[in-house]
Amino acid sequence: MTTALVILSGGQDSTTALFWAKKQFGYVEAITFDYGQRHRTELESAKKVAEIAGVPHKLVRVTALEQLADNAMIKDEEIVINKTTGLPTTFVPGRNLIFVTLAAGYAYTKGIKDLILGVSQVDYSGYPDCRKETMESLEKTISLGMDFDFTIHVPLIDKNKKDTVLMAKELGVLDVMKHTHTCYKGQRLPCGECPACKLRAKGFAEAGLKDPIFSLS
Amino acid sequence: MTTALVILSGGQDSTTALFWAKKQFGYVEAITFDYGQRHRTELESAKKVAEIAGVPHKLVRVTALEQLADNAMIKDEEIVINKTTGLPTTFVPGRNLIFVTLAAGYAYTKGIKDLILGVSQVDYSGYPDCRKETMESLEKTISLGMDFDFTIHVPLIDKNKKDTVLMAKELGVLDVMKHTHTCYKGQRLPCGECPACKLRAKGFAEAGLKDPIFSLS
Repeated sequence: MTTALVILSGGQDSTTALFWAKKQFGYVEAITFDYGQRHRTELESAKKVAEIAGVPHKLVRVTALEQLADNAMIKDEEIVINKTTGLPTTFVPGRNLIFVTLAAGYAYTKGIKDLILGVSQVDYSGYPDCRKETMESLEKTISLGMDFDFTIHVPLIDKNKKDTVLMAKELGVLDVMKHTHTCYKGQRLPCGECPACKLRAKGFAEAGLKDPIFSLS
Repeated sequence: MTTALVILSGGQDSTTALFWAKKQFGYVEAITFDYGQRHRTELESAKKVAEIAGVPHKLVRVTALEQLADNAMIKDEEIVINKTTGLPTTFVPGRNLIFVTLAAGYAYTKGIKDLILGVSQVDYSGYPDCRKETMESLEKTISLGMDFDFTIHVPLIDKNKKDTVLMAKELGVLDVMKHTHTCYKGQRLPCGECPACKLRAKGFAEAGLKDPIFSLS
C-alpha cells in the first residue's frame, strides 16, 4: 500500500481531493498550513474534515507569507484587482509553491512520494500557481531539489465547480461539504456575494444539488 | 538600472555573491531567512554584512521548517550521515527551494526579477538543492507560478571554496569575510573541526590567503 499526503485547506476542493486520495491510496495523511489567513474558521474546517476522513492531520504554522506582502487573504483589505498584475488581491505570490514544497519536505522525512493538491485551472481567478504547467514544473523542482521521486497529483485540475460537486457526490461525501469553508469574508455560512461564495453557489446550482452547508443547525 | 535581490545567509558564499551582485546590478537588496537555525550568530553576520554593503536588508522569520523534521541545523544534534539518503543530517529538505520561492514572492511585490543565490555544486555535501539543474527548474517554476519572468543568478555554482576566496579578493571584499559565519558548532571563530570550518580553512589555504576572521579582536 502506498502512502500519500494531501494538502488540505479546509475548502471544498481540497476536501474532495482528500476523499479522492483515500480511494486511490492505501494510507493517507493530511497537512494544513496556517499562514495567518484572516479567517481562522478555515483551519477549523480542515481539522473537522480530517477527523471525518479519519486521517492523521499535521498543522504547520507558516509565518513568512504575511511578512512578505500586504494581501487581502491575510490583511483586512478590500478585494480588488491589482492593476499591474491583473490578478485579484487575494493572490498570495507563490503560496501554492510554498505549500507544496513544505509538504514535500515533510513527506521526504516520512518516505512519502505522492502529494495531492486540490487546485483547478478552471473557474479560478487566473492564479498562475494553480495551472497544470506550473505543477509539472514544481514536481520536477522538488524531485530534483530533494533527490526524491515525487508525484504531484491534481485530480481537480480540469474540473469546474460543478464537476467538483459531482465528484464529491460520486465519492459519497457530498454531506462532508457542509464542514468546508469558502467565504472570503470569513462567514461560516456563505455570504453569497464574494467571488468564492458565488463560485460555490454556481457549482451546486449547475450540478442540480443542494449545498449541504445550508442544512447546518 | 536593474534591481536585484540577494538571499543572504551571513556565510562566506552568500556574502561574496552579494558583493558580486553590487557590481552587476544598479541596486541591490538583501533578504535573510531566520528558520530557527541553532546558531543565531549567523543572523548577526548577515545584518553586519548588509550594513557594510550598504543595502536594504529584510529579515523574514520562517517557522515552518523546524516543524517539519528533526535536523542538525535546527536541533541540537550530532551531525551524522543519514543511512537512507546518504546525506548529512545538516540537510534541511527543500530549504533552498523554500528560500528562493519566498524571496521570489517578496521580489514580485517589488517588481524585482533578478534573484541571486550563493550556492555551489562543488565542494558541498551533495545537497541536491544546490545543483544547477535544480536551480534551472526552480527558476522555471517560480516564473510560471507567479507569471513573472524571474532569473536566478548563481555566480558561485561552479566555484570551489578556493575560487570563492579568490573571487572575494578580486571584488576587494576579502576583509568583509571576517564578519561571515561558518561553523556548524556556532562558534564565532572557526572550530576547525566541523565539515564547514574544514572547508573554509581549505579554501583559504589553497588560495594562499589568510582568513581575516582570525584577525578579529
